[in-house]
Amino acid sequence: MEHNIYVVGMGPGAEEMMTFQAVKALEDSDVIIGYPVYLSLLGERFTGKEFLSTPMKKEVERCRMCFEEAEKGKKVAMLCSGDAGVYGMASLLYEIGKEYPECELTVIPGITAANSGAALLGAPLNHDYCVISLSDLLTPWEQIEKRLKAAASGDFGIALYNPSSHKRADYLKKACEILLEQIEEERACGFAENIGREGTRIVTCTLKELKDMQVNMFTTVFIGNSRTELIDGKLVAKRGYHL
Amino acid sequence: MEHNIYVVGMGPGAEEMMTFQAVKALEDSDVIIGYPVYLSLLGERFTGKEFLSTPMKKEVERCRMCFEEAEKGKKVAMLCSGDAGVYGMASLLYEIGKEYPECELTVIPGITAANSGAALLGAPLNHDYCVISLSDLLTPWEQIEKRLKAAASGDFGIALYNPSSHKRADYLKKACEILLEQIEEERACGFAENIGREGTRIVTCTLKELKDMQVNMFTTVFIGNSRTELIDGKLVAKRGYHL
Repeated sequence: MEHNIYVVGMGPGAEEMMTFQAVKALEDSDVIIGYPVYLSLLGERFTGKEFLSTPMKKEVERCRMCFEEAEKGKKVAMLCSGDAGVYGMASLLYEIGKEYPECELTVIPGITAANSGAALLGAPLNHDYCVISLSDLLTPWEQIEKRLKAAASGDFGIALYNPSSHKRADYLKKACEILLEQIEEERACGFAENIGREGTRIVTCTLKELKDMQVNMFTTVFIGNSRTELIDGKLVAKRGYHL
Repeated sequence: MEHNIYVVGMGPGAEEMMTFQAVKALEDSDVIIGYPVYLSLLGERFTGKEFLSTPMKKEVERCRMCFEEAEKGKKVAMLCSGDAGVYGMASLLYEIGKEYPECELTVIPGITAANSGAALLGAPLNHDYCVISLSDLLTPWEQIEKRLKAAASGDFGIALYNPSSHKRADYLKKACEILLEQIEEERACGFAENIGREGTRIVTCTLKELKDMQVNMFTTVFIGNSRTELIDGKLVAKRGYHL
């Protein structure tokens, strides 16, 4: 392979939540490509780098840009929030990479919102869990509904990504209604907003209360499993140890 | 709160895969408590610290040790591999913490094997996914079976933890047989061994082949969803972008 492209998960935003490996990959790169919001979260140590971007929904173009810059001989990093392989650009880069056989991809994992949000709320994913996005931009709603039902039937802890947006203000409500077909109203739930950024906020509530909560697109929502308890304000999925 | 205890996820093992926050918490601590294997993975920068441990299966005692050391006035970190809140000690510490109201817990997330292993294999969790442990030490096998069936019915990407041990040599085979009731034999799968440690190895295969593979307890197994393809030797869960 002639060129290597780093696909870097930056974690939730704060530099202290990046791994050493991620920072090193960005430092090694000539050009850092990413969604503008993520680039703006990078600290001063990256000031000298070339930054390139495309608007939201222009992910295909953003990925092509990586290969085109690499072919010019530049060292390239694609910056993703959270983990590059969780609703990030890793898979799309592999797909487009078929057209650029001289380029190799190295994925550098980061902390995804399921795990960084869980840490803030306590330990809601401390047993088997599912991660589901409520965005239907690329996934039919029927598929999302099927996964919500499966997650409830398996008694998983659940992390919900993209619970709301301007066009989908009622998606969390719809999701909760589906979950309530199988899960009791009093199930311990919660959410984390602006994880690793300004204005971090956590809320715990029951599933019934969650149904009518207003959340924004910077929120990650957690549904406990049947053994999740609220302990001193924290969501805790018990593992079953005998005390 | 008089005392704070850090619950630290170290990621898979290599220091470069730890976050800055995790390293800082360990550096700030007087005593680092953990399972011996994890303590042995820590680098030279922690040489001056007091290390305390208990054997495997003595997790309750290990957690109590944290509170007892904190009550002596020491700054304590509980070290977990991967993420402290994914099959780690976070939830047990919250449970035991009820008895120590003067101690507060701060969970510092790390990269769990689902995400670090996925990065090595390509992008097998790049859409909705489940994480399931095959260990039946604390979970009845019937519950594990129910979750495997739910994961298959929801067409999730799946990461399997603890796929084997001396006493459970055939558990991966049993799990694959359950998945094969709903998933085709040719489904793209794979596994990663010794992630972030000496002897890292990745393998890709079909679900039918996976059924008869020998894996060890340092392996994380991945089952693709219905849109997962093998591209240039990598497992890629396509998100559905139009190219």
